[in-house]
Amino acid sequence: MSRLSLNSMTADRWSLVEVIDACAEFGIEWIGPWRHKLAEIGVEEARRRIDDAGLRVSSLCRGGFFAAGGAEEDNRRAVEEAAALGTDALVLVCGPPSGKDLAAARDVIEAGIERLLPYANEHGVRLGIEPLHPMMIGERSAINTLGNALDICERLDDPGVGVVIDVYHTFWDPALGDQIARASGRIVGYHVNDWLAATRDTVWERAMMGDGIIDLPAFTRMIDAAGYDGPIEVEILNPAIWDLPREELMRTTVERFERCVF
Amino acid sequence: MSRLSLNSMTADRWSLVEVIDACAEFGIEWIGPWRHKLAEIGVEEARRRIDDAGLRVSSLCRGGFFAAGGAEEDNRRAVEEAAALGTDALVLVCGPPSGKDLAAARDVIEAGIERLLPYANEHGVRLGIEPLHPMMIGERSAINTLGNALDICERLDDPGVGVVIDVYHTFWDPALGDQIARASGRIVGYHVNDWLAATRDTVWERAMMGDGIIDLPAFTRMIDAAGYDGPIEVEILNPAIWDLPREELMRTTVERFERCVF
Repeated sequence: MSRLSLNSMTADRWSLVEVIDACAEFGIEWIGPWRHKLAEIGVEEARRRIDDAGLRVSSLCRGGFFAAGGAEEDNRRAVEEAAALGTDALVLVCGPPSGKDLAAARDVIEAGIERLLPYANEHGVRLGIEPLHPMMIGERSAINTLGNALDICERLDDPGVGVVIDVYHTFWDPALGDQIARASGRIVGYHVNDWLAATRDTVWERAMMGDGIIDLPAFTRMIDAAGYDGPIEVEILNPAIWDLPREELMRTTVERFERCVF
Repeated sequence: MSRLSLNSMTADRWSLVEVIDACAEFGIEWIGPWRHKLAEIGVEEARRRIDDAGLRVSSLCRGGFFAAGGAEEDNRRAVEEAAALGTDALVLVCGPPSGKDLAAARDVIEAGIERLLPYANEHGVRLGIEPLHPMMIGERSAINTLGNALDICERLDDPGVGVVIDVYHTFWDPALGDQIARASGRIVGYHVNDWLAATRDTVWERAMMGDGIIDLPAFTRMIDAAGYDGPIEVEILNPAIWDLPREELMRTTVERFERCVF
């Protein structure tokens, strides 16, 4: 329970202030805000409220989208915001390919990370490359396997860049065990949720832990064995979860985290 | 054009007889039927009509689902049907995991293929393992990368088992080039279609060649370099395609095949 972090996307219909208050009320010690939530009240006010509630920030979501216009400036702002929130982790959703050449798209992403890295290091913020599920390649990320993300980390060879591992995006990978072991020392974050057997929607159907087919305890054992002992974010993009009554959403999150993740 | 095969799923609202007639009328020399279409008229009548239309059968879709009840008997029937149709290729959709242990699920699949293989060899039918997109793991297949399919082929080490490579299921893979090269001599079939950038549905949103983000000519060059020179199936699971007027569906298929695949 001391490792549970509530990613704000799990309660995306609530304001950031409401998410902060709910964490405090239900005994959650960490929060993982998205930047569109920070924008509601600004980073200084957010920091003040998070501190007042006794919470710590596990990561900021998200920088990336390296092929988009203005990415460089926006990513530097994301680094500044992460530092201002007192977290050492910025999640990178690396962005889709701009054309049909995936190798070229991956080179653009790697070059973008390399350019951002000194600025992140100056601010004491680690960049966490989050490989997204291959079904999200068209609009969200051309980095779709943990192996590909680790290839980039190893080439850049800097402790300021690592990976964020989300069970939803990676559980299907037949190389998963080897790649998590390879990620040892480079794990910037760990996200839990679940995959429904009958998933039809590529974006909005992520499930509560225990409702799907991912062997979460086995996954967590691999993460443990790789030496990661930081906060674990519950991140669930799903309007059906967002529509739950506040008490039910919070109690279910806490109960499932304790019962299904370890 | 002489390599174009129409997979019956591209016109799933039509009867098998209508698909056969359309191929003949629009100059397509190959057909790839699904078994639920064969069942409409039986395999002998299907064979007679396919022969009469001057077509050849590129493959039969599909065997597999190795963890399902009755799989062994059903897969032997699929081998018999493929042989009766005069095709040497049976596509295997290997089936989803029955529990949360993916390694165990993959072992069950491999054991099922190994048991089926002697029967397939007796009938002159090659088994083509088709890795499906990782988003289809829950209900369709636990074999989700070309690399995983080739691992199985190499362990079984028999010319009677190979892979069917569909651009839609595999294009995202950062290891794709290496794995297609590795597949040399084991490619049982090649399927084309396209991936829409804004894909939302995990099953029914496959696109016509040229409408998506897959670099099809580059993909085909890799398949060529691996030595595959057999028929190329157009397989599109998409109700919006099925609803096209007959003439438009057929002309578009032929035109896009000639313009977008090579």
